[in-house]
Amino acid sequence: MCDLLRINTNRGVMIGDGKQRFSKNGTPINQFLGTSTFSEYTVIHEGCLAKIDPSAPVDKVCILSCGVSSGARISGASRIFGVDLNPKRLEEAKNFGVNEFVNPRDHIKPVQEIIAEMTNGGVDRSLECTGNINLIISAFECVYDGWGVAVLVGVPSTDAIFKTNPFNFLDERTLKGTFFRNYKPRTDLPSVVDMYMNKVFKSSVGDFNECLLITFQQKLEVEKLLIDFNE
Amino acid sequence: MCDLLRINTNRGVMIGDGKQRFSKNGTPINQFLGTSTFSEYTVIHEGCLAKIDPSAPVDKVCILSCGVSSGARISGASRIFGVDLNPKRLEEAKNFGVNEFVNPRDHIKPVQEIIAEMTNGGVDRSLECTGNINLIISAFECVYDGWGVAVLVGVPSTDAIFKTNPFNFLDERTLKGTFFRNYKPRTDLPSVVDMYMNKVFKSSVGDFNECLLITFQQKLEVEKLLIDFNE
Repeated sequence: MCDLLRINTNRGVMIGDGKQRFSKNGTPINQFLGTSTFSEYTVIHEGCLAKIDPSAPVDKVCILSCGVSSGARISGASRIFGVDLNPKRLEEAKNFGVNEFVNPRDHIKPVQEIIAEMTNGGVDRSLECTGNINLIISAFECVYDGWGVAVLVGVPSTDAIFKTNPFNFLDERTLKGTFFRNYKPRTDLPSVVDMYMNKVFKSSVGDFNECLLITFQQKLEVEKLLIDFNE
Repeated sequence: MCDLLRINTNRGVMIGDGKQRFSKNGTPINQFLGTSTFSEYTVIHEGCLAKIDPSAPVDKVCILSCGVSSGARISGASRIFGVDLNPKRLEEAKNFGVNEFVNPRDHIKPVQEIIAEMTNGGVDRSLECTGNINLIISAFECVYDGWGVAVLVGVPSTDAIFKTNPFNFLDERTLKGTFFRNYKPRTDLPSVVDMYMNKVFKSSVGDFNECLLITFQQKLEVEKLLIDFNE
């Protein structure tokens, strides 16, 4: 991973000179995640800049981020299980490619055992998107031994501890994490915009583009946000 | 993994009919790990049988097992660190390709930090061969974030618990285990015998064949061993 530009919520300043680029009435305002994209104009390190198709609608493609790049359908999976405590999310999840749904509240056994039963031993790949440490453990333990791979996407709390019996690894399961699907944003993000523009993912189970729902638009109180962040 | 023939130290009987093939004075003697190769003659499931080069010396190639197949040099690594508390093992380890040695007793910091310093951030691959749970954790945490992969080979105690901060995964480290290098013994083991016969691994840092040291040979008290195992 790029040590220089890695997301650092504590930095708040530009890498080059250790200073901010925003101020109000002489008071410096910190950078947000190295990009400060809540601002209408910003100053960022050249490595954080990606050139995209100039005809792309920026009010839509601005939300193309790790939630899209790390999805299962984009990788060609056919049987996609969604696991959620909220049954209302099923319909919404179908738009993103989920075609089977497991609600842990419907079962007494741990969800990893339910999924192993539904798949005759476990899934080929699992993605954990919440960061909840117990779900991270379930996501790892629901993959098939011999070749199963669990991928962590969700950000856990800083004091979370992952625990498992090491025999789960020796049985040839793999656990890895991904940060933005290991995309190199500058070179890889433009291809996601191209997929949006070319409607690559239109299919019977949902339309990739229609999934980029903009439920409402609102003028951000940017000044307040930035001041909150500084504090 | 093959559910049928997976090593099961508790089974002790043939899969087909659930019975033993050995006996003494009418008392059944259990199978050992599905093969009972301490015996001069044995009965095994056909899936446990591999046909090897008939000219191979069986008193040498009988010890070709996971310790050889899972090694670092066989996979082409150039910088190979050996980590051991016993400095006497350095010379022996050189024969197996180790060219740098770290003794955790020589350092105050955890060994994963020492290795990260020696390698400007961590190693590309680490192999843990002891099964000690603390070393498993060290082996995982000494790999480079972004692409490092730790592979577990050693068998831990059944009640061991692997623990780590999940951010170590999100930083794109991978942890996996291997069982006999994921070899399919029946199809892959003959190639290891061929490597021995063809002296493929003769090199300046050691001779693969000479590493198959037979330090002494001894007639096994097979009856006693089997009876101990039955008990």
